[in-house]
Amino acid sequence: MTKSKTWTAALLIIGDEILSGRTEDKNIAQVALWLNDQGIRLVEVRVVPDIEERIVSGLNALRSSHDYCFTTGGIGPTHDDITVDAVAKAFGVKVVVHPTARAILEDYYRDRPGGLTDARMRMARTPEGAELIANAASRAPGIRVGNVFILAGVPHIAAAMLDALDGTLEGGRKMLSLTIGARAPESDVADLLRQTEADHPGCAIGSYPFFKDGGYGSNFVIRSEDEALARDCGDVLKDRLRGHGFEPVEGGI
Amino acid sequence: MTKSKTWTAALLIIGDEILSGRTEDKNIAQVALWLNDQGIRLVEVRVVPDIEERIVSGLNALRSSHDYCFTTGGIGPTHDDITVDAVAKAFGVKVVVHPTARAILEDYYRDRPGGLTDARMRMARTPEGAELIANAASRAPGIRVGNVFILAGVPHIAAAMLDALDGTLEGGRKMLSLTIGARAPESDVADLLRQTEADHPGCAIGSYPFFKDGGYGSNFVIRSEDEALARDCGDVLKDRLRGHGFEPVEGGI
Repeated sequence: MTKSKTWTAALLIIGDEILSGRTEDKNIAQVALWLNDQGIRLVEVRVVPDIEERIVSGLNALRSSHDYCFTTGGIGPTHDDITVDAVAKAFGVKVVVHPTARAILEDYYRDRPGGLTDARMRMARTPEGAELIANAASRAPGIRVGNVFILAGVPHIAAAMLDALDGTLEGGRKMLSLTIGARAPESDVADLLRQTEADHPGCAIGSYPFFKDGGYGSNFVIRSEDEALARDCGDVLKDRLRGHGFEPVEGGI
Repeated sequence: MTKSKTWTAALLIIGDEILSGRTEDKNIAQVALWLNDQGIRLVEVRVVPDIEERIVSGLNALRSSHDYCFTTGGIGPTHDDITVDAVAKAFGVKVVVHPTARAILEDYYRDRPGGLTDARMRMARTPEGAELIANAASRAPGIRVGNVFILAGVPHIAAAMLDALDGTLEGGRKMLSLTIGARAPESDVADLLRQTEADHPGCAIGSYPFFKDGGYGSNFVIRSEDEALARDCGDVLKDRLRGHGFEPVEGGI
């Protein structure tokens, strides 16, 4: 296995509704899984309120330290949707009406009551120099500026925008993961886990305890960019769990 | 209404399992709701991997800019549980065995197979000068150091630690919220929302669109520290929605 560049991404979630506890976030997991399929690692997430200066400073910190930066939230038609303005400010560019976005919205609202109102036209605004990201779910597009990808906050619309980006970003190897469960309290096998990880450079083992069906257990997740390494590590872990009297369960419990 | 100090908090989520997409986060919402009950606003969240330097830098950024900083994750008995070491490093103090934490674990593991192993003893380690946070769910305590509160990552254990902290932190007014739903696409009422917010200083209105039962709609969330202000804003919003032909639904749809 040759060592290749690890491509990294950060996610900036823009949303008072997440910080107030009103809405449970669904975007971290879906963006993380999608990025891994592209060979890109999600290595930091920040959630900030709908306040321009907080968005600008979060975005500038994240976009300068990762290959890619994704945002979710704040691109609808209402007054609390300020992501485009904040991203333009972070890049030091103007906000413009993107002609293709305008055409998409004109088409979409042509036969709908009210037509393309000023509020709806907000969804055609982008930072100057931006490209659009198609949205098969609800038409109003996402936006790409440099290494920043602006997605909707509503999870199924964000998912449609990720679909449109599928395979378009440069990435490296996928992180593979292999889960092995056991009815073992993690504190009973902590030494064994540490040793198994140490014996397998290139693999990381995470331990996730649970309480289920009246008993304690743990799922052990082996992560590696190399499938053979991960399998080997998994085989050793299974043997050692059996040696301690715990029956390993492939795929986890 | 006199203007009083707004108490703020940040949350640092330590967890490869969140960044890999394996586990959907449940702690942001529960910490946010609990903080609001204490009169404290959650104003930033960061998710970082299980890497000491990333935890240290995230923690130092967040604890210096907010009244309180909470962490979740990384305090179990296994090799990937490095939160205590990272927090100690951030504060520039040693890691010690806390005598009360040790006594709690000795008691808990006295009659359990294996007893208090070295791995389990890891859960008695704290940064020097720390206090403990009781854990009625699984005994191994949370930790307070200065304005930092170290909680478990498993949501029901984090919840038990929050219960133990209930009413112990200085805070201000709660943020009250009032939800009004309507079968209105948000782009049809964007101007009305903006005007209603502008007419009610001290209130913020968030707009959250949905698609349900074959139709579009939105929930409008009015947030204010002042109940009378929020109610007044809500009454005006309901009148204006009716004026546009949309029947408002108290409590949201």
